[in-house]
Amino acid sequence: MPTTITSRQNPRVKQAAALRNRKSRDERQQTLVYGPRETLRAIEAGAEVLEAFLCSALLRGADADAAANAAREAAAEVYETTPEVFEKLAYGDRLDGMVSVIRTPQRTLAELTLGPQPLVAVIEGVEKPGNLGAVLRSADGAGFDAVVVADPVIDLFGPNVIRASTGAVFTKSVAVATVDQTLAWLRGSGAPIYATRPDATQPYTAADFSAGGVIVLGAEATGLTGAWHADDITPLCLPMHGVCDSLNLSATAAVLFYEALRQRSQ
Amino acid sequence: MPTTITSRQNPRVKQAAALRNRKSRDERQQTLVYGPRETLRAIEAGAEVLEAFLCSALLRGADADAAANAAREAAAEVYETTPEVFEKLAYGDRLDGMVSVIRTPQRTLAELTLGPQPLVAVIEGVEKPGNLGAVLRSADGAGFDAVVVADPVIDLFGPNVIRASTGAVFTKSVAVATVDQTLAWLRGSGAPIYATRPDATQPYTAADFSAGGVIVLGAEATGLTGAWHADDITPLCLPMHGVCDSLNLSATAAVLFYEALRQRSQ
Repeated sequence: MPTTITSRQNPRVKQAAALRNRKSRDERQQTLVYGPRETLRAIEAGAEVLEAFLCSALLRGADADAAANAAREAAAEVYETTPEVFEKLAYGDRLDGMVSVIRTPQRTLAELTLGPQPLVAVIEGVEKPGNLGAVLRSADGAGFDAVVVADPVIDLFGPNVIRASTGAVFTKSVAVATVDQTLAWLRGSGAPIYATRPDATQPYTAADFSAGGVIVLGAEATGLTGAWHADDITPLCLPMHGVCDSLNLSATAAVLFYEALRQRSQ
Repeated sequence: MPTTITSRQNPRVKQAAALRNRKSRDERQQTLVYGPRETLRAIEAGAEVLEAFLCSALLRGADADAAANAAREAAAEVYETTPEVFEKLAYGDRLDGMVSVIRTPQRTLAELTLGPQPLVAVIEGVEKPGNLGAVLRSADGAGFDAVVVADPVIDLFGPNVIRASTGAVFTKSVAVATVDQTLAWLRGSGAPIYATRPDATQPYTAADFSAGGVIVLGAEATGLTGAWHADDITPLCLPMHGVCDSLNLSATAAVLFYEALRQRSQ
């Protein structure tokens, strides 16, 4: 039987809750995974689970039993908590009964291998965890080979990225790199590079993804930096027929990714 | 010269800040608009501006001067505030110097008129303001004729919907209705109705939008209700090539809307 924690002041709980802060995550190289589905995907992807906090009274969701069993098996330490204690861990936010502390995975370009005619997404300077998570989820859905997160403002394995990606951040081929490293690596791949820019004259539907391609997306507020204005990079835009001059970042990503998939499926 | 407010306890400021709460918005039939671009779009769309709170020291953004002038012209009351007071209004969240209180617009199906072969989006039971705002923005970009928000959990003109839509919620043809009203109205339009469902067998690319069409999207967690399982409604899905079984709601919407636009542009 696991230890049951009944106090919100328990040091294990306080240590885990501190991982909501980026600074603690960076210092300890640990992060938080909320939810059964996300926990299952982390474990499937080989994440090192240091602690699992379960609250049987709150466990729910289609994967709850499988995930709880997998967490009990994988975690170095397993704690049962009362709902009051669990609320502190979950910030009242996602009360489905399971939070795990894992060692933050390291993901670099060196580990990415691309097949022939690959589809790759690059996202530069992303600021919002919800957007990064949604982009990873869309790249997963569209069957992209890899996602490179270039010079991000946020951390790839922040709890809100994990959650918005529904765990795809663990299972997808993904790397964090500088823009310079990313550009050098992309150019080595031989795939055509397309940069999404609101000032482009060519619509995204004019791109030819039949032999693979790289789709590069800029930050929410500021778009792509000058590094992506180069002769070997083709700018693309989405037609805008209303008052807005762009879509939300993750919406833009989804449209482009699924257009690439559509062309490849024909 | 407008009155300058220097106290965070000023009753005007407290009354406006209370509109962050849904209950206050519903009771007073007023809402908050943050930001120059959003304010401009509200005014362009004929919104009744009751109060404008400006903070000259914080005003920024491409549209700042035009929006400040438009707000001074349109608002029944204009206040200049100190940065400290403005922070209270903006919840530290969007400090670009302009918050307005407007009468909440009413949008019903009776006001929507559709051209021939229209493109219409329906979103049922939406729970997250960011998703609703992004869907409105994507419908605006793809040139949809109208958006119907059926049985929403949230209010259409909540501050976070306005913001996520970058103001398109004001300029787009949009209506709030029950599901029953929506279905009756859609059937009267004669346009083919497509429901996005993860369990559909037909991919979205098989739909023919050349003569118009209605794209129906379900709630984030629960999808569409049974009302949309009918013989005259065609289920569609997005191909999912990874571990996730669906995309984020606003990503799904963007892919569908832009596929419709792509077909119509050929």
